[in-house]
Amino acid sequence: MDFKDLVMQRYAARAYTGERIPEEKIEALLELVRWAPSGLNLQPWRIKVVEDAPTKGALMEAAFGQPQVGACSHLLVLCADSDLAGRIGELEQLMRQAGSPEKERRRVIALARDMVSRMAPAQALAFAQQQVFLALAHALLGARALGFDGCPMTGFDGARVAARLGLPPRLVPTAMCPLGFGTDRPALRVRFPREELCL
Amino acid sequence: MDFKDLVMQRYAARAYTGERIPEEKIEALLELVRWAPSGLNLQPWRIKVVEDAPTKGALMEAAFGQPQVGACSHLLVLCADSDLAGRIGELEQLMRQAGSPEKERRRVIALARDMVSRMAPAQALAFAQQQVFLALAHALLGARALGFDGCPMTGFDGARVAARLGLPPRLVPTAMCPLGFGTDRPALRVRFPREELCL
Repeated sequence: MDFKDLVMQRYAARAYTGERIPEEKIEALLELVRWAPSGLNLQPWRIKVVEDAPTKGALMEAAFGQPQVGACSHLLVLCADSDLAGRIGELEQLMRQAGSPEKERRRVIALARDMVSRMAPAQALAFAQQQVFLALAHALLGARALGFDGCPMTGFDGARVAARLGLPPRLVPTAMCPLGFGTDRPALRVRFPREELCL
Repeated sequence: MDFKDLVMQRYAARAYTGERIPEEKIEALLELVRWAPSGLNLQPWRIKVVEDAPTKGALMEAAFGQPQVGACSHLLVLCADSDLAGRIGELEQLMRQAGSPEKERRRVIALARDMVSRMAPAQALAFAQQQVFLALAHALLGARALGFDGCPMTGFDGARVAARLGLPPRLVPTAMCPLGFGTDRPALRVRFPREELCL
């Protein structure tokens, strides 16, 4: 599918057929998310894929009862990894193992260490959370490309979600993305006009 | 192009042929960005498209001399619009003009007013900035789909950028995206392995 068609066909699906998304499609989606861009290539995210009804039910409550959380086939909970210093160490090891050119590896790691060392903890978390939205965009477009639909969500009680999933403190739930075969395509999608997009 | 190919071919281009991107391709890209998703559909962003060399030069200085800012064909400066209450009023008017069903319009606007009323100013800005990264993802993927390349950047002095562009206080420079025909495709792109992506 042409990228423009993909962009125009994507919408925030909140009601689904009830059909289960095949496992290989979920795997294909996660692969598209894995290759999302991120600042300093730190990929400061971890994803919980939830499929069981009790957990979806509990997370629906943590999302103020929004029905798409319970009704979806699979739910992605996208978490920001606020431990950027740890992530840099992991990236350095990854680049070594992957055989990245030493000069490039040194440049990337030095730049990342310099930038991250200037961040207060709240800034590091904000940075990680922003990158999660790049991964979320890949999930939303990827879902449509694979023939199903997602819904971007940030309206939930992050602390309750973290508690229910037993997350370590470094991981902060930042966005949810229920997935399913959407049945509620709107007749009309609205955007501000082109002449208001730019300054 | 298949979406997976698009995702795999996209990379952060920092060096370019020097060829100018045709105006109609820039317009096509902005259209892809315009249809990006956003929380509450507030589209809390405005974009400055910079093409002239003096402004690119000044913004390169504000970006700590990173050469892709000066060398690109066009530079997108993606700004977060922190005035969410104002944006809700604009969205309400837009939905009226577009002929959105009244029930849907009332639901969307009431939800947005409720959520935004609970946000402190810093939270509203953080919310708007997060949405900018959804638009940025559309810009990066869209550039590749249209045959050129972009580079996601957040390493710059936002206050200097705002001053140079004469931005009103409600608009906060959040990401840059230099655009051009990339010449520096890396031999190797690295990502953490699939088994580390999920919890």
